[in-house]
Amino acid sequence: MCDQWKEEFEYAVQVARAAGAVIRKAGECEIKVQTKSCAVDLVTQTDDRVEKIIIGSLKEQFGEGTHCFIGEESVSKGKPCVFTDKPTWIIDPVDGTTNFVHGFPFVAVSIAFAVNKKLEFGVVYSCIEDKMYKARKGHGAFCDDEQIQVSDVKDINKSIIISEHGTDRSPEKVSKIFSTMQKILRIPVHGLRGSGTAATNMCLVACGASEAFFEIGIHCWDIAAGVVIVREAGGILLDVDGGEFDLMSRRMVSANNKTIADRIIKEIEIFEVVRDDAEI
Amino acid sequence: MCDQWKEEFEYAVQVARAAGAVIRKAGECEIKVQTKSCAVDLVTQTDDRVEKIIIGSLKEQFGEGTHCFIGEESVSKGKPCVFTDKPTWIIDPVDGTTNFVHGFPFVAVSIAFAVNKKLEFGVVYSCIEDKMYKARKGHGAFCDDEQIQVSDVKDINKSIIISEHGTDRSPEKVSKIFSTMQKILRIPVHGLRGSGTAATNMCLVACGASEAFFEIGIHCWDIAAGVVIVREAGGILLDVDGGEFDLMSRRMVSANNKTIADRIIKEIEIFEVVRDDAEI
Repeated sequence: MCDQWKEEFEYAVQVARAAGAVIRKAGECEIKVQTKSCAVDLVTQTDDRVEKIIIGSLKEQFGEGTHCFIGEESVSKGKPCVFTDKPTWIIDPVDGTTNFVHGFPFVAVSIAFAVNKKLEFGVVYSCIEDKMYKARKGHGAFCDDEQIQVSDVKDINKSIIISEHGTDRSPEKVSKIFSTMQKILRIPVHGLRGSGTAATNMCLVACGASEAFFEIGIHCWDIAAGVVIVREAGGILLDVDGGEFDLMSRRMVSANNKTIADRIIKEIEIFEVVRDDAEI
Repeated sequence: MCDQWKEEFEYAVQVARAAGAVIRKAGECEIKVQTKSCAVDLVTQTDDRVEKIIIGSLKEQFGEGTHCFIGEESVSKGKPCVFTDKPTWIIDPVDGTTNFVHGFPFVAVSIAFAVNKKLEFGVVYSCIEDKMYKARKGHGAFCDDEQIQVSDVKDINKSIIISEHGTDRSPEKVSKIFSTMQKILRIPVHGLRGSGTAATNMCLVACGASEAFFEIGIHCWDIAAGVVIVREAGGILLDVDGGEFDLMSRRMVSANNKTIADRIIKEIEIFEVVRDDAEI
């Protein structure tokens, strides 16, 4: 029983690595950009293609009927985002599409697996850096083959905090995001950072390069794999109001410990977002 | 004549690589942090040690009397920052000290060389990524052995812009920095980024990953090498008010072209900083 989902986990690592190689190669060719929800939310042919490769491989290996799939590209094309008790793969084929289009060096493949709505493992392949982050519940978190752990910093004044501006440019949201960042910088902290991909940001927390990453507006596929990696590296997940973390809520604080998380949460100005599993 | 300073240039590349190896090794050991100007402006024993190694090597190779040196650590210890017509090395041993202390993956060695106050070459070694950026006036810019060039994007709406929050936490400056960033995001642009090191930020512009990087408050040693790299990659340098770039002014816009630079400059809220060459 303790080795349940080991086969799925190891296969996910292989699939993520293969998908990352496709992305790297595509990055060397010219990229045709299509608009998705708006001009700043870029989607490329590569996103589509890589999602099909990943889901295709997983279906072939584990059977079409028994496993469910939540993929960024499928959902953006109108497939409902339904999270059930069935074994479910949650996939972002190219996290950091804007980075990808510009050749900015953080692009990740994110693959997570949940059963009974509990995340069992997560794989984040930062494919330009060629770093494979992975974690299975109860088995620790790893970058390549080295075990990783969160930072032991408890003093907020000695922290690096990560957040992102997101792709929504509505004035109220942008104002709240900047106001929150400014208040956090002034605590003061050592610095604010953002790689442009939520999956990589969570791995930066997991390996101790940053004390916390928070964001409102991320999707379940951006963070599902990272959630397992942060937890297995000794970190915690909370809602932005300090309550229990909810994968479908699009609100998240990931941190090395509760002291840092609570201090950040004090400064976060919350705005409304539509849940990933809302009925459309 | 066309190969003047070739020997100095090639030696600088060797010295930067050796210095980067020292930094990488130090990063694996425990880091003792001392405060410099304030709690957020970290300086480590490594900065000191690496600057001594670099300046020591250069003096040994090129003679103590003929060449001048401007190094971040020497200046912070009270050595005057005097920029004369003599052959002058401008050195930041560890650009991105905060990143270094936290294990955040952007840390650079920056070495530039000027004669008659004109920059002749620049070398930026991003030592965690193991990328060697280098450029000599009139000979193009390179990352490792591949020639690099700036992005050809002229549409600001398709740009990624880089800036930093800096280490000064005075309320007026922080407000202006955030206000500028918010206005730029709302133009809108594809995204805002910041690696936490000015030298690396300039290389990201030079290789086309970002259209522009601007900052008020940077020092000459943070950007001198990057200036040559951006120029040789086809980019431009301007003052934050659109005037001529001045290495000692601590104000800089580096961009892929004038269209992008001018659009960014419209949004920059300028604040006062003390010049690097001000008499103390």
